[in-house]
Amino acid sequence: MNILDIINKKRLNKELTYEELSYAFNGYLNKDIPDYQMSALLMAITINGLSFYETYNLTKIFVESGETYHFDEKVCDKHSTGGIGDTVTFIIAPILAALDIPIAKMSGRGLGITGGTIDKLESIPGYNINLTKEEYYKNIKECRIAIGAQTDNLVPLDKVIYALRDVTGTTESIPLIVSSIMSKKIACGASFIVIDIKCGEGALIKTEEDAKVLSEWLIKMGRKFNVNVKTLITPMDEPLSNSIGNALEVLEAIEVLKGKETKLTKVSLDVAATLIASYKGLLPESGYILAKEVLKNGKAYEAFEKWISTQGGDLSKIKVSDKVLTLRSAKDGQITHISALACGKLSIKLGAGRQTKDSKIDYSVGVKLLKNKGDRVKKGDVLAEIYTNDVNIDLSAEDLNLFTII
Amino acid sequence: MNILDIINKKRLNKELTYEELSYAFNGYLNKDIPDYQMSALLMAITINGLSFYETYNLTKIFVESGETYHFDEKVCDKHSTGGIGDTVTFIIAPILAALDIPIAKMSGRGLGITGGTIDKLESIPGYNINLTKEEYYKNIKECRIAIGAQTDNLVPLDKVIYALRDVTGTTESIPLIVSSIMSKKIACGASFIVIDIKCGEGALIKTEEDAKVLSEWLIKMGRKFNVNVKTLITPMDEPLSNSIGNALEVLEAIEVLKGKETKLTKVSLDVAATLIASYKGLLPESGYILAKEVLKNGKAYEAFEKWISTQGGDLSKIKVSDKVLTLRSAKDGQITHISALACGKLSIKLGAGRQTKDSKIDYSVGVKLLKNKGDRVKKGDVLAEIYTNDVNIDLSAEDLNLFTII
Repeated sequence: MNILDIINKKRLNKELTYEELSYAFNGYLNKDIPDYQMSALLMAITINGLSFYETYNLTKIFVESGETYHFDEKVCDKHSTGGIGDTVTFIIAPILAALDIPIAKMSGRGLGITGGTIDKLESIPGYNINLTKEEYYKNIKECRIAIGAQTDNLVPLDKVIYALRDVTGTTESIPLIVSSIMSKKIACGASFIVIDIKCGEGALIKTEEDAKVLSEWLIKMGRKFNVNVKTLITPMDEPLSNSIGNALEVLEAIEVLKGKETKLTKVSLDVAATLIASYKGLLPESGYILAKEVLKNGKAYEAFEKWISTQGGDLSKIKVSDKVLTLRSAKDGQITHISALACGKLSIKLGAGRQTKDSKIDYSVGVKLLKNKGDRVKKGDVLAEIYTNDVNIDLSAEDLNLFTII
Repeated sequence: MNILDIINKKRLNKELTYEELSYAFNGYLNKDIPDYQMSALLMAITINGLSFYETYNLTKIFVESGETYHFDEKVCDKHSTGGIGDTVTFIIAPILAALDIPIAKMSGRGLGITGGTIDKLESIPGYNINLTKEEYYKNIKECRIAIGAQTDNLVPLDKVIYALRDVTGTTESIPLIVSSIMSKKIACGASFIVIDIKCGEGALIKTEEDAKVLSEWLIKMGRKFNVNVKTLITPMDEPLSNSIGNALEVLEAIEVLKGKETKLTKVSLDVAATLIASYKGLLPESGYILAKEVLKNGKAYEAFEKWISTQGGDLSKIKVSDKVLTLRSAKDGQITHISALACGKLSIKLGAGRQTKDSKIDYSVGVKLLKNKGDRVKKGDVLAEIYTNDVNIDLSAEDLNLFTII
């Protein structure tokens, strides 16, 4: 077999066999095939596509490139293609655990405007993100939740391919997105998965149409691997919660778990209901009722505390910056839009997010939105609080343009 | 400007500006942009194409990447996209010179089954392929011919891009082929160019249709740079002459220049006639008559001797191997096909061609065809002579399957 023949075949939009895909991708993982040949192949795939059968084979090759997890029972998992202020995992994992439904999840770090669950977990002092396989198995038994960082041995092929896609204009490929997401979920041993597909200008998936295709492929791919996949398509343009920034987001999640109703409550109940219904074979409406019940009666919060302490975290030590600037409305009017992109960019500027993979982040800074879309405001009203550790920070009018008020 | 934006633009089949093309390609030449990003861009270009205007801009960027030649008078050039037994340059340069028409040419080395003019010239002991710019100017004045190897300063961008295309499945792109050929010819200072487009299974251009598109683009591009381009489309499946192998090919060219009529005579007269007609503003028929005349009256051969001695070559020292094997017909019948591909592969096995860029070649070996297509042969007739320096060479039936006899 010859890598040039494989590249040329895909360039001419022909179907690649399992053996050809394996030769190319495993060859790249083993460093037999250089970056420049893999990036040419990735571009040919991104433009010409892969058939579903090719995508299935590629997903298998991804899964087989590393170790796989096998739990004694069926476990749930949840994935989001990346949002702003997205702490849904922090709400739904305890809801499921309170209903004795296990959830095991490997999460990523944030890059760019998109936050990462692992960074948020690390804002809880003591929380151990580096679980071994045995700790995963043990924690699932003990507290029904195990959430850590992706290990080096899990789908190592996805790691190297993702890094290359990120710098070669080949991220926006549905077959490659499907292989990347599904291989990790399958290797992780999930039986029930809900995937929240973010859609909009700032997201990987730009159009509703693409989101629908991705949704179909994810569900179909799940079936091929005997995994029950459900999807949600949610807009990316507004932040999911009122907090953006790692510790701030965890604190808002705690408030929700303690019964406060914010916009995070709604989407979290939807996601939880979907997983509960799948797991228990109920209608989503029944899942919703069960979820709401454990949120109300405090059992979800109990499960949250048990999870965090099982993984070594100390909730009493979460710290947010004590230097708080206020953003006030410049006019009277109604809030018609809150820009997720602007909130994300501002939080990066504050130090809450990464601009490059090697950036250090500050867990204690971020933005807290005090008004919601639709709210009427008066000139001088406080719209948001800005948590910073740099009193001399230079914020322009553009940096602070989070709200559209008409 | 950002390389990812440029790659994404071409991935989505949008037109790139001069500035964007320059940023990407000159960035690659300056090593600011890595291999893997350029190969992704090249693949997007190969699949989605470039408009003629983009190709014009890219050709300009290529030309501007290095030094350019400016002769005191209008000079001719000739290019072939790569054939087997192709010594047309050796015939037409002296024909033109005998008619006082200057021809300056930078040639390449052979790779794979395709021979290179520079290798053939180096089979003439003493021939200096490394001409300086001043030597080009001087030789054109003195003997009307100057042919050497491409210098490092001429279109350096083409060198690095070509090397990358060669290993990334991005050679078969008409816009990239046009930029590569035309930038070198324009930088070399040619005013009249004839380009022989080889077409067929073993060639870069596989179909008659693609050959026609390439031809149109080359002519149109010539016009944009004020260069008169003529093209020929010739099949690649049969060898152009009866000799394959460097010294053997030069010796056959000498026979043709001395008046022997072989199949090389016909195609050489066609190419020469085209250039003479362009240069002198005549009809091709008149160019043909002039070419034939100087071939017949010995003036072309005189010009050949003067050219070779001007560049230091000693024709009396050309050496072919004295170990000659004979290939005999296994049956009675008529020759219906002689495979250029098989002849090329056999000559590589004998050591006359390069398998990789670093292979050393043996100028004295090769294949001499003694029969032509259409000839009737009897079992036992000698079909070809095989010149080798390795008496123990192991040639299989497949290696020797040059002739189709029915």
